[in-house]
Amino acid sequence: MEPMTVDLAPGAPVADIDTPALLLDHGKLLGNIRRMADFFADRPAGLRPHAKTHKCVEIARLQMEHGAVGITCAKLGEAEVLADGGIEDILIANQIVGRLKIGRLMRLARRCTTAVAVDDAENVRDLSEAAAAAGITLRCLVEVDIGMGRCGVAPGEPALELARLVDAAPGLVFAGLQAYEGHLQNVVPYDRRRGLTRTDMQRAIDTRELIESAGLPVAVISGGGTGTHAISGVMRGVDEIQAGSYATMDAAYRKAGVPFENALTLLSMVVSRPAPEVAVIDAGLKTLTPEFGEPTVLLGGATYTEFSEEHGTLRLQGAARDLRPGDRIELIPAHGCTTINLHDRLHVVEDGKLSDIWAIAARGRSQ
Amino acid sequence: MEPMTVDLAPGAPVADIDTPALLLDHGKLLGNIRRMADFFADRPAGLRPHAKTHKCVEIARLQMEHGAVGITCAKLGEAEVLADGGIEDILIANQIVGRLKIGRLMRLARRCTTAVAVDDAENVRDLSEAAAAAGITLRCLVEVDIGMGRCGVAPGEPALELARLVDAAPGLVFAGLQAYEGHLQNVVPYDRRRGLTRTDMQRAIDTRELIESAGLPVAVISGGGTGTHAISGVMRGVDEIQAGSYATMDAAYRKAGVPFENALTLLSMVVSRPAPEVAVIDAGLKTLTPEFGEPTVLLGGATYTEFSEEHGTLRLQGAARDLRPGDRIELIPAHGCTTINLHDRLHVVEDGKLSDIWAIAARGRSQ
Repeated sequence: MEPMTVDLAPGAPVADIDTPALLLDHGKLLGNIRRMADFFADRPAGLRPHAKTHKCVEIARLQMEHGAVGITCAKLGEAEVLADGGIEDILIANQIVGRLKIGRLMRLARRCTTAVAVDDAENVRDLSEAAAAAGITLRCLVEVDIGMGRCGVAPGEPALELARLVDAAPGLVFAGLQAYEGHLQNVVPYDRRRGLTRTDMQRAIDTRELIESAGLPVAVISGGGTGTHAISGVMRGVDEIQAGSYATMDAAYRKAGVPFENALTLLSMVVSRPAPEVAVIDAGLKTLTPEFGEPTVLLGGATYTEFSEEHGTLRLQGAARDLRPGDRIELIPAHGCTTINLHDRLHVVEDGKLSDIWAIAARGRSQ
Repeated sequence: MEPMTVDLAPGAPVADIDTPALLLDHGKLLGNIRRMADFFADRPAGLRPHAKTHKCVEIARLQMEHGAVGITCAKLGEAEVLADGGIEDILIANQIVGRLKIGRLMRLARRCTTAVAVDDAENVRDLSEAAAAAGITLRCLVEVDIGMGRCGVAPGEPALELARLVDAAPGLVFAGLQAYEGHLQNVVPYDRRRGLTRTDMQRAIDTRELIESAGLPVAVISGGGTGTHAISGVMRGVDEIQAGSYATMDAAYRKAGVPFENALTLLSMVVSRPAPEVAVIDAGLKTLTPEFGEPTVLLGGATYTEFSEEHGTLRLQGAARDLRPGDRIELIPAHGCTTINLHDRLHVVEDGKLSDIWAIAARGRSQ
């Protein structure tokens, strides 16, 4: 199945890209990748970019070329796509449960350095049995819930107990702790985000000390995100930061004040002008996601006010009232990760031209 | 790109379908299709099912086999997929704007009976120029805004004026009116929905009379949806009902009390049990959409309370607290149209077995 219906080749003007379409500004993307790489260049912690945002092999490769220690992903299916694309060190920062996925995980672990998060004794036994039977060694990070209230065991003794179980399990290696402060990524003001992040990440560090004092080395604490990379990433005892959104960025992180540029935009078109103050564009819920609010319209006087399935409604003021059907406008998606997951490709733009088309190869790889 | 990573063949037990995955109960699907077909069997109005919901050629074909007069779709890309799949009469119930899409529309109109909605004089001129140059005749429905407040011209004189323009335009045929009461589909109680729908659809019928009294025949009024099919579909002067969701159904329409069964469910798995009253499943915002609220969990005592990107959080009461990691549960998506758009395939289930896998071939065809 080939989702493109108009031929497009590198070198084409942006005007030849039909709408709606995701555009990726190559200069801004590279700038973001370099800025984050520079931040970690002289620090003890390394960068393990999260591919759940972009789901794109080309971007993962750029991140590796700029010094990343490996790639993080959310789903086994994403990891398989990354491995197909030549990524050699992958952390799946979630639990892999059930015989079907555990079988696939073993095959993945034969192909590349693979680590996975665990938070349940029975799952540890299942992984151990499969790894031992397959004759491989699987790296496991015990996930600690440091305040997000989702997956993970409690810090302290419960984490130590599970670490011991992993350490004793045939076929498994206890490789450290997964600790993601996802609930703090967008907290403003920044001082508040810093205070809360330090408090919560300290729980992981304290757990590390507990486990090490019990005689088990903790190779890494892996966690963090775009919004907290400069906080968690400088704490002694935190080894890897799993930032993802920094590469493409979105409106929500822009609002949270992180120092990266919006490389990702959605190119859309006015399809109807039912009233002087209303324009309807071809970008609704099947093109942009609503959970972080409305996208930012890159046209003064135009505000996105309503999502329909296939349409977006803009309210217009001033010169924006000159918009006519057929006019094209760009928007910054509110949430990059889920918006990218709706699309099949990124249109890479340089100097006003399409320089490349990158497949969002792990789109929809939710298994 | 092949999204399946585990081999699955018809006849496989449901236990071999990995999660998250959309399941489609074949018996319920057929029951829904027959029930709606029966409703229109002896009525003047016909059924033109909307494919924006299922985006699936196999379902569109079933609908045609059960007496549909044609298929409706929202996007040109969907229409191309349907035409590839052998559907011969397609209404694109939206505006097609811009040289790139108009070029594709002409190619589509050469392959099958094609109609499109219009609401703008300049767009009518662009379509006319392209159709005349291509030597084809394109059917145009003037879209009338009967209260939804999105696309469309106002009822009455503005619609007559645009109808005249279409009628006079080389290459175009004025084929009637597009009038969708999308704002009323889920209104409860039903009596209120009926009253509002009658009032709003009457605007389209009055406009029809105005246009016909001016000497222009109005071949069809096309509109309606699953929630209003039994209201608009029995009004004299309404010719086609564009119901879509009835085939698969979702939790929102269930709540609105329409008489169809939930054929579509999402199969998900518990991946973490962080607390006695909390289970985390592998179905979040990349698997289910949130704009109509939370999905319905088909397990007594379990309630979906929070969407994350890759996870859903369930609150558990009573026996639901026995859930363990690896347990599989089904959910009814709140909004079928956008949820299906996240997935690549429908797993068709009959008698507890996978009877077929249908591609969601028009998924992501937002252009």
